[in-house]
Amino acid sequence: MEMPVPSPAILARKAPIVERLRAVLPSGAVIDDPAETRAYECDALTAYRCPPLCVVLPCSTAEVAAVMRVCHEERVPVVPRGAGTSLAGGSLPTADAVVLGVARMTAVLEVSLENRFIRVETGRTNLSVSMEVEAEGFFYAPDPSSQLACAIAGNIAMNSGGAHCLKYGVTTNNLLGATVVLMDGTVVEIGGPEGEALGLDLLAVVCGSEGQLGVVTEACLRILPRPEGARPVMIAFDRNETAGDCVAAIIRAGLVPVAIEFMDRPCIEACEAFAKAGYPVCEALLIVEVEGSEAEIADQLRRIADIARGFGPLEIREAKDGAEAARIWLGRKSAFGAMGQMGDYICLDGTIPVSQLGPVLGRMRVLADGYGLRVANVFHAGDGNMHPLILFDANSADGLKKAEALGADILRLCVEVGGCLTGEHGVGVEKRDLMVDQFRPEDLEAQMRVKDAFDPDWLLNPAKVFPLAVSAGRRAAA
Amino acid sequence: MEMPVPSPAILARKAPIVERLRAVLPSGAVIDDPAETRAYECDALTAYRCPPLCVVLPCSTAEVAAVMRVCHEERVPVVPRGAGTSLAGGSLPTADAVVLGVARMTAVLEVSLENRFIRVETGRTNLSVSMEVEAEGFFYAPDPSSQLACAIAGNIAMNSGGAHCLKYGVTTNNLLGATVVLMDGTVVEIGGPEGEALGLDLLAVVCGSEGQLGVVTEACLRILPRPEGARPVMIAFDRNETAGDCVAAIIRAGLVPVAIEFMDRPCIEACEAFAKAGYPVCEALLIVEVEGSEAEIADQLRRIADIARGFGPLEIREAKDGAEAARIWLGRKSAFGAMGQMGDYICLDGTIPVSQLGPVLGRMRVLADGYGLRVANVFHAGDGNMHPLILFDANSADGLKKAEALGADILRLCVEVGGCLTGEHGVGVEKRDLMVDQFRPEDLEAQMRVKDAFDPDWLLNPAKVFPLAVSAGRRAAA
Repeated sequence: MEMPVPSPAILARKAPIVERLRAVLPSGAVIDDPAETRAYECDALTAYRCPPLCVVLPCSTAEVAAVMRVCHEERVPVVPRGAGTSLAGGSLPTADAVVLGVARMTAVLEVSLENRFIRVETGRTNLSVSMEVEAEGFFYAPDPSSQLACAIAGNIAMNSGGAHCLKYGVTTNNLLGATVVLMDGTVVEIGGPEGEALGLDLLAVVCGSEGQLGVVTEACLRILPRPEGARPVMIAFDRNETAGDCVAAIIRAGLVPVAIEFMDRPCIEACEAFAKAGYPVCEALLIVEVEGSEAEIADQLRRIADIARGFGPLEIREAKDGAEAARIWLGRKSAFGAMGQMGDYICLDGTIPVSQLGPVLGRMRVLADGYGLRVANVFHAGDGNMHPLILFDANSADGLKKAEALGADILRLCVEVGGCLTGEHGVGVEKRDLMVDQFRPEDLEAQMRVKDAFDPDWLLNPAKVFPLAVSAGRRAAA
Repeated sequence: MEMPVPSPAILARKAPIVERLRAVLPSGAVIDDPAETRAYECDALTAYRCPPLCVVLPCSTAEVAAVMRVCHEERVPVVPRGAGTSLAGGSLPTADAVVLGVARMTAVLEVSLENRFIRVETGRTNLSVSMEVEAEGFFYAPDPSSQLACAIAGNIAMNSGGAHCLKYGVTTNNLLGATVVLMDGTVVEIGGPEGEALGLDLLAVVCGSEGQLGVVTEACLRILPRPEGARPVMIAFDRNETAGDCVAAIIRAGLVPVAIEFMDRPCIEACEAFAKAGYPVCEALLIVEVEGSEAEIADQLRRIADIARGFGPLEIREAKDGAEAARIWLGRKSAFGAMGQMGDYICLDGTIPVSQLGPVLGRMRVLADGYGLRVANVFHAGDGNMHPLILFDANSADGLKKAEALGADILRLCVEVGGCLTGEHGVGVEKRDLMVDQFRPEDLEAQMRVKDAFDPDWLLNPAKVFPLAVSAGRRAAA
């Protein structure tokens, strides 16, 4: 992955820059010892690493603004960081950048059950937001699989989804307002509990902007009452295409399950060997979960089974109680662990139209055969968000390189059939140079004009999202 | 309403500008005869009128781009227009502007039931989008009350809602992609059937931008399968506050009715006198409608009635069949007609937190008494979107002025309790100068920077959205 050459002028000014940052922050909030900054040299995309100039850990919006003002005056790039769980390298530092971590900003600022919102500092972890309102029967819907660790700041930056997003949407559908510190230190309030849907809707463009426009320090989030119950049904098929058609038929019928998970044969076999969940041996397995009152659950499961029977399934296994539900989920939930046991893998993240599920799985296998690699699939089928896992040997000389090349081919296939490069992980550095496959030059130009408007010097989160070649002129001029 | 002085230079160049426009459009697509341009001098906010320089009615995205290039080169403002049904003056012309109407662009470009989308030209009316897929059991969810006449272009510009938006969201939640012609004639493709949620989410900022950023010529819209059935329940209360609390409790319980409509006593009395729907005489009436299978409908209505009983209602009347359902809706649906019979009125559009419904209705009455005016309320209570109707005498010298002053006071009250100036009608010219009550200067500045990025010369839809005083420097510099 090509990265821009760090500015020698900034590297040479490290000491005075660190000193200025120390002057505006409490003691201990600036880390510049290389032994300590190493902890920030990568995020969960560990294949790429670079220690930053220094790291700052402010405790308030005012402190973040003070840091931004210093960096703006010194023309130092800033890499915002939540919990560092990005799978796309969203918070990968450059050597000349200040990493601005919000991990110390975890306060709950306001809770209103009546108006169904919670306002938090964005260093707070995703799961702890739900836990804050759990006793009152509420929850925060987006639930990425990293929810124990990941921060709301990163969820907003990447517009994170999760297992429940088919029904509840992704972060942008559950974000009501944000406090954003711009690169020059200006603090902007966007949206609020009532949405404030007037003028230009900046909230939606900040959500998912991967730290390109500003640092989100506080967020107002929608909380929802927990449904009375939930129950899964497992449906086995002898062909991927039939399973894909069944998913499309469920969606077309207007049913909104909480989740429709799809596992293909390589994944089923790995999970079964690992977790022994009692899955049937078959080509494709769907796990469809519905939520609601007992009457709603029974009604929805009946309708889903009726639809599935039309596709000649090998088996329909409805959970009769909590223990059976847990067994159905056991294999799926251990999928990533099971894969890890089989060897190294990279996890992709693309979306396709639901109608293309079957054909794309077939073409993916042909592509993988061409590279002599194996691909296992476990993904959120209801919204067409695929997570192909490419298995490779990290000890072979060109193992990672071949896997990455296959990954790029698969993502291009997603775009070709009308889908896109990322469903919920974001672009980061990982898919940056594939953006030209998704967008025409004038479409990227329109996006970069908005970047210009918020960050004219292109100091925020450098070398992410926009292909280096496409953005070279702007970065050089800044 | 103050409007900027039209440019004498443009007025003087009318003939050559019209000639250049005729050169890039088919015959009959440019209207400059003052007798004919008068039809475009206002939209549904008829209190404000101004004939434009001329009107163009292109038939394709390419023709729109050609018009924009001419206007950009000539530095002529462009006022985009859908069907002209804006209640906020969103397509009010200025004397030096070209009105660009999309009314001739009505084609259906693509339908995919499997992937649940329809792609149309944006001059198509809202209702005709639903009708296009009705036979297959689908519909397009946003349904503003003007849906028979209003165009998708205007729905996107104003981020329109409708009676069903509590469950299905507003336009932004149902818009998947858009073809946008920028002021310089560049054609940008944003989003698509799969949402393309990567890079900066320009779709959301274009949606609701009231023609400030570009002209949306084609749109990809989510279509949904029609639910099996729907049924309303009517609940009567002796106090507004109790009705408001009941709404909050229904929402808090996690129920998602399709609609929760709220009528106060002045509205109930007017509707009953007009439509004789058999409504009880009371202070506040809720109509709650639920949708789904028969089992879901029965389950939801039971839970709603259980909640309502906790608030000591005067009456709970559940529709037992279609005829009873129609009777419950009859009064509500004739509300605007009933009000029209009582005299002149202006219809406001603000939002408040659901928990504030009761207190705000009380304070609104006090404000109205101060002006010696009457206010009737009928609104979408589930999402706190109020539509107070201010009754006034148009024949009295200061009738409209007093009503507008009361309207501004009521909207400021909405902002004060944490709500906002508009729920679904947009800012337009009507609420333009109230934006300073909603936003701090730095928040408006951030919005205007995005406007700069798309339309640096501030030629698009002049004198809307941004207060004249706040945007004066930018408009003068352009």
